[in-house]
Amino acid sequence: MNANSLINHILKTSSFSEKELAEIISYFNHQSYKKKEKLLLAEKRCNKLFFVSKGCLQMYFIDDLGNSKTVQFAIENWWITDILAFQNQSQSNFFVEAVEASKVSSITFSKYQELLAKHPKMETYFRTIYETAFGSSLMRFKYIYSYSKEDLFFAFRDQFPEFVQRVPQYLLASFLGLTPEYLSEIKRKKRS
Amino acid sequence: MNANSLINHILKTSSFSEKELAEIISYFNHQSYKKKEKLLLAEKRCNKLFFVSKGCLQMYFIDDLGNSKTVQFAIENWWITDILAFQNQSQSNFFVEAVEASKVSSITFSKYQELLAKHPKMETYFRTIYETAFGSSLMRFKYIYSYSKEDLFFAFRDQFPEFVQRVPQYLLASFLGLTPEYLSEIKRKKRS
Repeated sequence: MNANSLINHILKTSSFSEKELAEIISYFNHQSYKKKEKLLLAEKRCNKLFFVSKGCLQMYFIDDLGNSKTVQFAIENWWITDILAFQNQSQSNFFVEAVEASKVSSITFSKYQELLAKHPKMETYFRTIYETAFGSSLMRFKYIYSYSKEDLFFAFRDQFPEFVQRVPQYLLASFLGLTPEYLSEIKRKKRS
Repeated sequence: MNANSLINHILKTSSFSEKELAEIISYFNHQSYKKKEKLLLAEKRCNKLFFVSKGCLQMYFIDDLGNSKTVQFAIENWWITDILAFQNQSQSNFFVEAVEASKVSSITFSKYQELLAKHPKMETYFRTIYETAFGSSLMRFKYIYSYSKEDLFFAFRDQFPEFVQRVPQYLLASFLGLTPEYLSEIKRKKRS
């Protein structure tokens, strides 16, 4: 497994020499995961930041009633982890799990610190990544708050048809703050 | 009006000489806003990033039914803007408005680019800011998805009593994805 996706993604923000790129990539591990395999466990120290080269990961928590609720998806070229827990080196609030068989590059917290200190251009890269991630989450609030619970799923399906085809509907429902039961109910209503 | 809050906040991530700090601060404008005054308009180019030295700002949009919905608050030491629109220099999806009389430092997009190019340590500062902002928004999804609509407001009030005292309840309801009517209804129920 190679690191081409990560290299191409890093090259989008700054230019790097071949030597620099080889050095940067050496800070990462590259691993394949099977569908449903867990990459991060809730209540364990969050020591890794993940980049998806291929496949799809989800981040979720289990609520008091035992239902799992998805707070983020990451498909190709997205980063994912419990970033606050990673930053503070504290226990994760979330699980990270493969939705599909996935190829992932990961970096530990200490390697991340070293990488940023040694290659300041990577600060620019990650600053841009988090700007986009934070901005996207604001748009997600706008999205969730723009629709009634009843319309939300269908609006999302119409706007992101490829994503909806790829990810199981019960996970999408969870991502939109709907229970699987509620989703079944509104789909039944829609048909009748 | 001085820039002490911003300087103190910047000093939390890296050390800077007096000369560097003076230079950095020269990229910013410092301004006071009255309660309800608008700092950013939806559908206008988003050219400014705001730092709150004193007071409280909110960012919101107006939905198809004419209701305003809050996607973010910023109190002292927080940054706020439509960051995706700022990054892309496109039209803002949101309004930014003062909830209280506020003192704010702002930077334009071109100054922001110059600042980051000239002072790479500011990349570290902003990378950390957005890490925290993105992580906090994931926790907000966790929060919203952990409670029933009926319990959400009261859970939030119990957990952040000072914040709830400071911000009008209809804005908090909006921030939590509840309509003012729904909030009145659940408060009436709770009393009866």
